[in-house]
Amino acid sequence: MAERAERAWSAAEVRGRCRAGAFGGPTAGLAPGRVQANLVAVPVEAAFDFLLFCQRNPKPCPVLEVVEAGGTEPRCAPGADLRTDLPRYRVWRDGRLVEEPAEVRGAWRSDLVSFLIGCSFSFEEALVEAGVPVRHLEEGCNVPMYRTRRPCVGASRFQGPLVVSMRPVPAELVTLAVQVTSRFERVHGAPIQVGAPETLGIADLSRPDYGDPVPIRPGEVPVFWACGVTPQAAVLASHLPFCITHSPGHMLVTDLRNADLPYRLAGPAGPGGQEAA
Amino acid sequence: MAERAERAWSAAEVRGRCRAGAFGGPTAGLAPGRVQANLVAVPVEAAFDFLLFCQRNPKPCPVLEVVEAGGTEPRCAPGADLRTDLPRYRVWRDGRLVEEPAEVRGAWRSDLVSFLIGCSFSFEEALVEAGVPVRHLEEGCNVPMYRTRRPCVGASRFQGPLVVSMRPVPAELVTLAVQVTSRFERVHGAPIQVGAPETLGIADLSRPDYGDPVPIRPGEVPVFWACGVTPQAAVLASHLPFCITHSPGHMLVTDLRNADLPYRLAGPAGPGGQEAA
Repeated sequence: MAERAERAWSAAEVRGRCRAGAFGGPTAGLAPGRVQANLVAVPVEAAFDFLLFCQRNPKPCPVLEVVEAGGTEPRCAPGADLRTDLPRYRVWRDGRLVEEPAEVRGAWRSDLVSFLIGCSFSFEEALVEAGVPVRHLEEGCNVPMYRTRRPCVGASRFQGPLVVSMRPVPAELVTLAVQVTSRFERVHGAPIQVGAPETLGIADLSRPDYGDPVPIRPGEVPVFWACGVTPQAAVLASHLPFCITHSPGHMLVTDLRNADLPYRLAGPAGPGGQEAA
Repeated sequence: MAERAERAWSAAEVRGRCRAGAFGGPTAGLAPGRVQANLVAVPVEAAFDFLLFCQRNPKPCPVLEVVEAGGTEPRCAPGADLRTDLPRYRVWRDGRLVEEPAEVRGAWRSDLVSFLIGCSFSFEEALVEAGVPVRHLEEGCNVPMYRTRRPCVGASRFQGPLVVSMRPVPAELVTLAVQVTSRFERVHGAPIQVGAPETLGIADLSRPDYGDPVPIRPGEVPVFWACGVTPQAAVLASHLPFCITHSPGHMLVTDLRNADLPYRLAGPAGPGGQEAA
């Protein structure tokens, strides 16, 4: 019944197959070159505080777009429907996961404000292109992620620790990894730390809090980036009465190009805003 | 009665003199090296929409900090009081300027959410240090600003055109000007356009919509940056029943360092966030 994913699908084709119920798998590697986004949809009464939390913690919470209450079609994916076009969702009530369905037309509420938050797939593509190996891609597993002891700047009910992802980088390529990801400020940007997990409060790299452990080889240094699990963890810890998120790894595939992220997605005043003129 | 401004005043000294009623002038050139901020305080019911407007238009509306309703002391200026520590304010009712006082303790309301928005003073300092002349500083006048025909991305009641500032740059220094200001993404960042005012809808550079005209010399090119007048114009056009802003040129002088803006002010996940650990 479910189709096997084809890398050659366009972003719109991935979304269309999700909508038709024909595809329900993880989106890593699909529609290469297109930006994928985390979804967090919260009731409008919590929207200001959540947007403020993101504004105060831009590295872990890079907001690509906010779709206001009543809306389900984001600008970054014309024709898409946020309720059907992701492969899998999570529905939360009072901070508890109650359902993990393939579409949320029935659960959706007209008071939900949808936040689309950037993810590291975008800069990983750039790392690989630049010749920086990305271990969890080589290993075919999920990136290892760790809760740190560094708190985010809170906003009302939204609080929590910074969560980081880790990629082992050969020592002579750390500079290149910093340079490449610095260009992706809108999707976590440059590393927040290089080489000292203990000062982040990470005792054992082989036991990540989320995702899978990856081997660190001789001559490699663990490099830490702010991670999009941070805002999701803050939302869940806030015990909102209701919210909907994507299921981990099952992202919205947008029409935005990764190649445009460094320079072109800064709103109407950026070069990418010319379509609004 | 009013003191003459001393460049040597620290940021806290500028604020203290404002609070004491001893200084009420423009802040350009004061407390060199410190970030100055625009103030826009709106009633809480408009706060989400205004924050969203800023998120959607980050180049003209770089939010440095949001102080929630009930608060008057920003993190970026410990000990400060937003109601007294700027040299001059504007009080707006139903979109009309009703008062331009030296303090707003009486007019302030507990439902005001305060937005501190970056300004170009920060990158102008860097331009001068890098050897790029800044004409309006040389001339001792205000920067020329122009309403463009490029619309911002609206958010509910907040709409309006992009407003830009213009600095003439010698042709051989345009690259340097782009490079230097690109490091200041959090205070308008890189130019939005170089050399073609007509495509922005600017018919006559000698007639700015705000500020003062400046001469453009042979071999110089007009370079356009997104301008902090944009969010203020959008707020005023929205006919909010009530809001308070700074008076033009009379900014909040914060303790933040311009030198930290490029890299260190990205929240807890940035190097500058370590104080929160």
